[in-house]
Amino acid sequence: MSQTEAAAEKCDIGLIGLGVMGKNLALNLADNGYRIAAFDLDHQKIEDAMAQDKAESGKGGRIVGCSSYTELLSRLTVPHMIVLSIPAGDIVDDVCHKLVDAGIKADDIIVDTGNSLWTDTVRREKQYRGQFFFFSTAVSGGEVGARFGPSLMPSGDPYAWARIEPVWEAIAAKVDPATGKAIERFEPGNPVKEGEPCAAYIGPSGAGHYVKMVHNGIEYADMQLICEAYHLMRAGLDMSPAEISDVFAEWNKGVLESYLIEISAEVLREVDSDTNAPLVDLILDKAGQKGTGLWTAVSSLEIGSPAPTIAQAVYARSLSTLKEDRVLASKLLQGPAIDQALVADRDAVIQSLHDGLYCSKICAYAQGFQLMQMASDEHGWQLDFGSIAKIWRAGCIIRAAFLQSITEAYQRQEDLHNLLLDSFFAEQINKYQANWRKSIANATLLGIPCGAFSSALAYYDSYRCETLPANLLQGQRDYFGAHTFERVDKPRGKKFHVEWGRPGRPMRQL
Amino acid sequence: MSQTEAAAEKCDIGLIGLGVMGKNLALNLADNGYRIAAFDLDHQKIEDAMAQDKAESGKGGRIVGCSSYTELLSRLTVPHMIVLSIPAGDIVDDVCHKLVDAGIKADDIIVDTGNSLWTDTVRREKQYRGQFFFFSTAVSGGEVGARFGPSLMPSGDPYAWARIEPVWEAIAAKVDPATGKAIERFEPGNPVKEGEPCAAYIGPSGAGHYVKMVHNGIEYADMQLICEAYHLMRAGLDMSPAEISDVFAEWNKGVLESYLIEISAEVLREVDSDTNAPLVDLILDKAGQKGTGLWTAVSSLEIGSPAPTIAQAVYARSLSTLKEDRVLASKLLQGPAIDQALVADRDAVIQSLHDGLYCSKICAYAQGFQLMQMASDEHGWQLDFGSIAKIWRAGCIIRAAFLQSITEAYQRQEDLHNLLLDSFFAEQINKYQANWRKSIANATLLGIPCGAFSSALAYYDSYRCETLPANLLQGQRDYFGAHTFERVDKPRGKKFHVEWGRPGRPMRQL
Repeated sequence: MSQTEAAAEKCDIGLIGLGVMGKNLALNLADNGYRIAAFDLDHQKIEDAMAQDKAESGKGGRIVGCSSYTELLSRLTVPHMIVLSIPAGDIVDDVCHKLVDAGIKADDIIVDTGNSLWTDTVRREKQYRGQFFFFSTAVSGGEVGARFGPSLMPSGDPYAWARIEPVWEAIAAKVDPATGKAIERFEPGNPVKEGEPCAAYIGPSGAGHYVKMVHNGIEYADMQLICEAYHLMRAGLDMSPAEISDVFAEWNKGVLESYLIEISAEVLREVDSDTNAPLVDLILDKAGQKGTGLWTAVSSLEIGSPAPTIAQAVYARSLSTLKEDRVLASKLLQGPAIDQALVADRDAVIQSLHDGLYCSKICAYAQGFQLMQMASDEHGWQLDFGSIAKIWRAGCIIRAAFLQSITEAYQRQEDLHNLLLDSFFAEQINKYQANWRKSIANATLLGIPCGAFSSALAYYDSYRCETLPANLLQGQRDYFGAHTFERVDKPRGKKFHVEWGRPGRPMRQL
Repeated sequence: MSQTEAAAEKCDIGLIGLGVMGKNLALNLADNGYRIAAFDLDHQKIEDAMAQDKAESGKGGRIVGCSSYTELLSRLTVPHMIVLSIPAGDIVDDVCHKLVDAGIKADDIIVDTGNSLWTDTVRREKQYRGQFFFFSTAVSGGEVGARFGPSLMPSGDPYAWARIEPVWEAIAAKVDPATGKAIERFEPGNPVKEGEPCAAYIGPSGAGHYVKMVHNGIEYADMQLICEAYHLMRAGLDMSPAEISDVFAEWNKGVLESYLIEISAEVLREVDSDTNAPLVDLILDKAGQKGTGLWTAVSSLEIGSPAPTIAQAVYARSLSTLKEDRVLASKLLQGPAIDQALVADRDAVIQSLHDGLYCSKICAYAQGFQLMQMASDEHGWQLDFGSIAKIWRAGCIIRAAFLQSITEAYQRQEDLHNLLLDSFFAEQINKYQANWRKSIANATLLGIPCGAFSSALAYYDSYRCETLPANLLQGQRDYFGAHTFERVDKPRGKKFHVEWGRPGRPMRQL
């Protein structure tokens, strides 16, 4: 085929936005046999993507650069499928309007793959109905995921999904069904074709971005838990980053095996070439955040689904930013003396930490799945949690052996109410909880903050508690605000009030 | 003066809404010499208020019932001052529009005393500017507070405040300046005239309702902390409600002296007359909530001001509502065996709890004041924290000896950055922290949830920590998302990124 013929041949998919994610998605699509018409306001990015296509494929032509929305549409087969990889916010609507002006039709599909807030996605799906299909797909896995296999959380119109499904299944990360583990191959031109794809239809519009938001909330909690374990070893046991790296590398061979533990070990092993100091000691301890963690915590508060470990992780990042305050406070506020007996008993303390991290992690994931369940009930999404756990087994940041255990829990019981009620997880916590408690008691007595660990334990101990002290709380509320209470010995729904201020304190049923 | 003359005499203040709060505010105003023109859509409520006025004052006529908005305006001196005591929401705007139709003028004032969301107050103040002064005053103290002295948090136009100030100062709760304690007198017709009034101008529109929202968030945390202390004694030490009531009554004589501890002791002492069982054992352990606690937690997440103990208190209420789950889980999920040595050492365990509750409470209040500070900075409110602590010393639900200590802290240093940095509070925590840690370790090992206690300690240990593990976290974020980091040995603002995937992992400055 001559170059002229190649240029005239229609493309399968339009891609708008050739930033880090967009370019890599385009190359991933190209590896899987799709021909891409690509557009970006920055012409240099189009050139770069085409050059990389040529370098990798030898001849190029798999990515066809376009200089306008109109040209992009003219290059595509009908009906059109156009993927947006652009920042969240007003620009999404802006591009949609421009595509309408350029002639997009009711049967065409626009897929938003950015980090949009899920409520914006719901609004857009409604707003553009009849003009075109607005479909969304949340993407997790960063740059490498986009290039060689991300985890994809699509949601929207089922008719649009039927057309998108083979494309997303082709480019998604793959899992070996026999082991539940990722099949990893990072070779241009040689995509993973076998295995179960990490792409599954999540539900109606917005559901996919909601699920991705909770994924990120869980990711915040998981990272903070790892950081607290690191902190206890570093400040409590006075271990070096290299020693802690070895511990994490060891942990990565067992139940804690995960991408986040793996990269933590690598970060801790890193030595700065200028100073020969461990890199982690040179990194400023002020954590950034982009919003998805706090959106998750806000949603959990509004829905009434307890997610204290996720909220703790968000607050830990806020606290880290108060560096100047902390430096000042560290000179004023005392802590306990380091308990040398604990330091001497290092191996046992580390084993407690391991078990505590594992139990805390189970609770953090239980909180995330419970939140998705409550949101699903509230919005009528009918989320399939077994399927969600499956697509998180590879491609995304929280990918781990652990997700296979969650997948199996939902296979055992599709309508499982809480991960803690699954026989496997209940048994795991029963087995490890003594050490979990010890790890928190150790940190508490050593003065090392462990808010994520202890919030996870409080969640567990509250969840398994038949009678919580909310009875006293309802008594207080009735006392000062006449808020009434129910009685355990009367039918539900009947409200009682004590007239606390009157002689004899008569009780009335309302 | 004849009855006809009395009816013809003009009233000082209009009051719309004669529910529990409105009626009691009207009687409080009347006791302080103001003549009230009152309206409610429910005519019976007008009759009741007038009857109570007559019963209490002997002759009546201090509250003049009106049958329409127009009549209400005609009864008032000019310019008008009208107080709304109606539910939050659209009805506030509805009544404002009706008053405009009835002839309210630019120089008149409408004061909203309901539980409005502060952002609604900001919007209304702008919307009605030029038509009348929309002023707001958040009211704390429930029914008894409204009748004999509430804590009042007014905000809005300073010109309107100048006119309202003497009225609010007259009816507010009063504090003895020598002791910092409430002057309590619950006698109709004999209001407290001496002492410092618990009413102070908070700031521009919305500020008063925001401060009241945070007051309630602190209240949630304080109540939950008390509940956790109760729970440990009840389930961990197997003490009876009456025994725990005695402990709280004893605690109420020391640093924990407060209205909430006092009423907790009373609730725990209450015996159900039908069953002879302690009432608290009959109250269903499902806590209700009206929203202000969760609004506070949401605001803290959005502003980035760590308030984990407030969030924990909100989540504890959510967890309590999952009663059916908990009953099921209590049979599946194991806890530790009760440690008989701890039970035998009851007095020491109770002393640790006392000290732990006190330290946790300091941290909860520190979080609330820090949040108000960040909100004040963000919105330019210039809140006066010494003044806020002062008006919380009496009248409101969190009134306590403790607020006098906070008042003094802000007197020592007006721009105090965090309560923990005050010499008194730092010294208190330094003194009691060993027992605080013990109380949490005890609960952790006994399996009694103590999420509010432990979140407070994590806040303390993080705040006093010079180097948090956020350095590892920033390393993780740079690894998977190229989010970059700063270095402790380079100037602030310079961003670095390690190319983790490339051989030799070169570091770039961006």
